[in-house]
Amino acid sequence: MNLLLGSQSPRRRELLAGLGVSFQTVRIDSDEAWPHTLQGGEIVRYIAREKAEAYRSQLTAEDLLLTADTIVWVDGQVLGKPHDEADACRMLGLLSGRTHQVFTGVCLTTTERQEAFYDTTDVCFRPLEEAEIAYYVSRYRPLDKAGAYGIQEWIGYTGCTSLQGSYFNVMGLPTHRVAEALRRFGISVP
Amino acid sequence: MNLLLGSQSPRRRELLAGLGVSFQTVRIDSDEAWPHTLQGGEIVRYIAREKAEAYRSQLTAEDLLLTADTIVWVDGQVLGKPHDEADACRMLGLLSGRTHQVFTGVCLTTTERQEAFYDTTDVCFRPLEEAEIAYYVSRYRPLDKAGAYGIQEWIGYTGCTSLQGSYFNVMGLPTHRVAEALRRFGISVP
Repeated sequence: MNLLLGSQSPRRRELLAGLGVSFQTVRIDSDEAWPHTLQGGEIVRYIAREKAEAYRSQLTAEDLLLTADTIVWVDGQVLGKPHDEADACRMLGLLSGRTHQVFTGVCLTTTERQEAFYDTTDVCFRPLEEAEIAYYVSRYRPLDKAGAYGIQEWIGYTGCTSLQGSYFNVMGLPTHRVAEALRRFGISVP
Repeated sequence: MNLLLGSQSPRRRELLAGLGVSFQTVRIDSDEAWPHTLQGGEIVRYIAREKAEAYRSQLTAEDLLLTADTIVWVDGQVLGKPHDEADACRMLGLLSGRTHQVFTGVCLTTTERQEAFYDTTDVCFRPLEEAEIAYYVSRYRPLDKAGAYGIQEWIGYTGCTSLQGSYFNVMGLPTHRVAEALRRFGISVP
């Protein structure tokens, strides 16, 4: 099989490479909207599938496409990528001093078969001061990140007091579940 | 204050740098033995203090020394750095299919003051096959790592199903607690 990663995220590229499999990256444009009846992890599983559908017509019989989506979920509300720095500060204010969920949905698609799942991690932030949020947002510009933070950046180092579940899921791929699923599709993960 | 990191670990260097503080690295030789009455986290707190004591005479009034030690704890037993590849395979066999604790002890020392603490993370591994363990040990040679694994390496990506606590503590420093403690010693963490 020829593994294709349908994501431009440098974190996802790094995580997939860390599994010891070889792959190529492809660009997929899809609108990332979802039916409002979906909740939490169902949303990212849906979007991961939609990304696959947007590319499906280009798949050959040897291709296995991996698509994914990550959201932050707090108070029954989705935090996706922030619109601008003010929106990023607002999001981090919502996450301050509490636990939120990170959901990553993954979809594996061939011309004949599709499998989609999601994984959940609980992430706890200590209370963050406004000056800390402003420092992080202006210095790290987390506009490409769901919930306006990268756990592997300064805010994760100083602000995240604990998590429950997979750390790599927060970065963008639940690697242990991706490895299992790739094996089910005949990819040799060492 | 002039921050000194008394550790040769590239992970600790990376984690401390990620907090946005500047520091120099110093080499400390100490024997890393501990009284057999100590248990779990008390052991790493003790060793972190012993490393500080081994360097104390070289501290100037402006220096703040950070020392640390990490162990894996399973069945009331310490896993430190493996002696050789066979020992690494034995350790990973002990960790397979269960949850263990990782303790990192940290000690901050000036000529006038000392503070020591430890942090705990629970790490769960799925059952690992012998061939996977052999692949990891020969490919990654984790002889410099407590418990014979790096969570940020292939075995962590594929084998670790969840953790509870700080991921960075498993890598070698509980960064959120180090940041707080550095501030108490007058180091400006952004």
